[in-house]
Amino acid sequence: MGTEPNILPQTIRWEQGCLFLLDQTLLPLEVVYEQQHTIEQVWESIKQLKVRGAPAIGVAGAYGLVLAIRDRSELSHGQFMELLERKADYLAGARPTAVNLSWALRRLVETARQMPSSSVTDLIATLEREAIRIHDEDRELCRRIGENGLSLVRDGMGILTHCNAGSLATSQFGTALAPMYLAHERGVHFRVYCDETRPLLQGARLTSWELDQAGIDVTLICDNTAAHMMSQGLVDMVLVGTDRVAANGDVANKIGTLGVAILARHFEIPFFVACPYSTIDFQTADGGSIQIEERGEQEVTHFAARRTAPLGIGFRNPAFDVTPNALVSGLITERGIVRAPYEANLKQSYADQ
Amino acid sequence: MGTEPNILPQTIRWEQGCLFLLDQTLLPLEVVYEQQHTIEQVWESIKQLKVRGAPAIGVAGAYGLVLAIRDRSELSHGQFMELLERKADYLAGARPTAVNLSWALRRLVETARQMPSSSVTDLIATLEREAIRIHDEDRELCRRIGENGLSLVRDGMGILTHCNAGSLATSQFGTALAPMYLAHERGVHFRVYCDETRPLLQGARLTSWELDQAGIDVTLICDNTAAHMMSQGLVDMVLVGTDRVAANGDVANKIGTLGVAILARHFEIPFFVACPYSTIDFQTADGGSIQIEERGEQEVTHFAARRTAPLGIGFRNPAFDVTPNALVSGLITERGIVRAPYEANLKQSYADQ
Repeated sequence: MGTEPNILPQTIRWEQGCLFLLDQTLLPLEVVYEQQHTIEQVWESIKQLKVRGAPAIGVAGAYGLVLAIRDRSELSHGQFMELLERKADYLAGARPTAVNLSWALRRLVETARQMPSSSVTDLIATLEREAIRIHDEDRELCRRIGENGLSLVRDGMGILTHCNAGSLATSQFGTALAPMYLAHERGVHFRVYCDETRPLLQGARLTSWELDQAGIDVTLICDNTAAHMMSQGLVDMVLVGTDRVAANGDVANKIGTLGVAILARHFEIPFFVACPYSTIDFQTADGGSIQIEERGEQEVTHFAARRTAPLGIGFRNPAFDVTPNALVSGLITERGIVRAPYEANLKQSYADQ
Repeated sequence: MGTEPNILPQTIRWEQGCLFLLDQTLLPLEVVYEQQHTIEQVWESIKQLKVRGAPAIGVAGAYGLVLAIRDRSELSHGQFMELLERKADYLAGARPTAVNLSWALRRLVETARQMPSSSVTDLIATLEREAIRIHDEDRELCRRIGENGLSLVRDGMGILTHCNAGSLATSQFGTALAPMYLAHERGVHFRVYCDETRPLLQGARLTSWELDQAGIDVTLICDNTAAHMMSQGLVDMVLVGTDRVAANGDVANKIGTLGVAILARHFEIPFFVACPYSTIDFQTADGGSIQIEERGEQEVTHFAARRTAPLGIGFRNPAFDVTPNALVSGLITERGIVRAPYEANLKQSYADQ
């Protein structure tokens, strides 16, 4: 029984110096790994959301920068550093708001800066190793979240998730899906109810695809069907990811998460959030000060380029909502499950950082 | 200020003996009234959901039967009655589960049966008048629900609705939308948050269209955005329709209604259900014994004929859910607002029936 972790969908593959990205815009209709030959191509792939999810973008960016410099051993040390910094700046512009992207690129530049007397050939080899290390660290971070959440996943359970916090958003395992993948590896049987996640259908297109690929029993529902599933006793736990957790444990995540959390509370179902350290924002006191991105009209009023609503009516399309900490049963981090009171316990868990 | 009721979208028009149906399958992209020349055409229109909503189907069916017999004054009385009954049976088959359709057709047949000594010419005239009466009664029923719910709609309010319980589902005014139309006529200003209502998008395609046509301020949201709107203090009341109310006040309505009711309770927002007598089922003790129709996969896994989910995964597509009476602030009926305890108060309101 069980599934080897290496058959999990991997959104980024680095094989003998070649970078392959799974084109997520084609999922689930086509599974296409597109080889990336140049940093310009990686820039386009990030821009066009062929690769998405903050951790995955960071990893793809690191490899993209390696592609730009690895055949330039003829350069002087000074020329090489200039090229490295220029290309890092260029690639960071593909998604300026993606924190992980600029973080990964800066990390490579800093690594090179700390080797002022190395040969360019050595620098190139070191940078490739550093990119692989970023990739490995992300995988390891997700695996630890998976292990820390593993005890929550029990045989016969129904688990509801929302949006995509899976392998496709990270190097592997994902965050919210990591405990499920590890439990599945160990032969635990459970069913995942997957909210389709309007308007962009990440649940239908991505989460249900990657769970199904891994051999996990997945049932797709429209977002508005979650309450009925819960009322029928089919959901024993909710497990979602997050984009940002405030210092007090308030959780910003994909629009619809708040509703699911309230339903879970109503039906007395535990509501857990997978939360790597990179999403905890100690500078933000509470969810009230998190600004919610409002996106455009077409995602709500159109579908597959076809209009489904009248012209000229009002609309709202917030990308995220904020779930108050009181509705959260626990935050599954790479350091363990953090429970209320969140402000004190988060501070304590990350006291060394 | 205000809008005349006669500029509300009317899904059925009977003008000088000609029947016109608004083709709802084309909304909101095109507004096409299709003249119905034969009962066969009406059968097709009901079958293809060009006309939908239980009350509207009943009215369309009555006129459809009139179309089949009104030019047959050459028949003997016996021949005429045989034709009338045969055509009524035929048309009832267009949607066998639509209670209002068979009810309206039976009513016409019974009307004719009670006139055994009338001429066929008189029968034809009487049946046309009876169809118009069914139409008028439905409009009047909706108007009374509107008047009884009118005091709930106050200036500056945000009202959330789900699915379509509007003019398009009835002869005019609708049920849940009736208080809004009447309030708008009287110059009350309010905003309606309209759930798009997956999977068939009745909210996006129909409700937002008819509210906008009437000049009411409408804001379309994805179903999963309701909680965020409520958390921002934008929703002061929820008002929905129903397909069936059990004797104890449990409410079966479009999938997603239960979730909205739970959110409303969480945020202490009143949750009202517009409920004409035809939807109250005194034979059904409570919501637990209402069977929930499960519909096909494609509505969830496809959109506009394009697949949006992987092949072969599980899915659930219940058409309805059941909201327990404890979450209902009141049932707005044509006889007034019925409040808890529902079993006793519904029985008392309809003691004469």
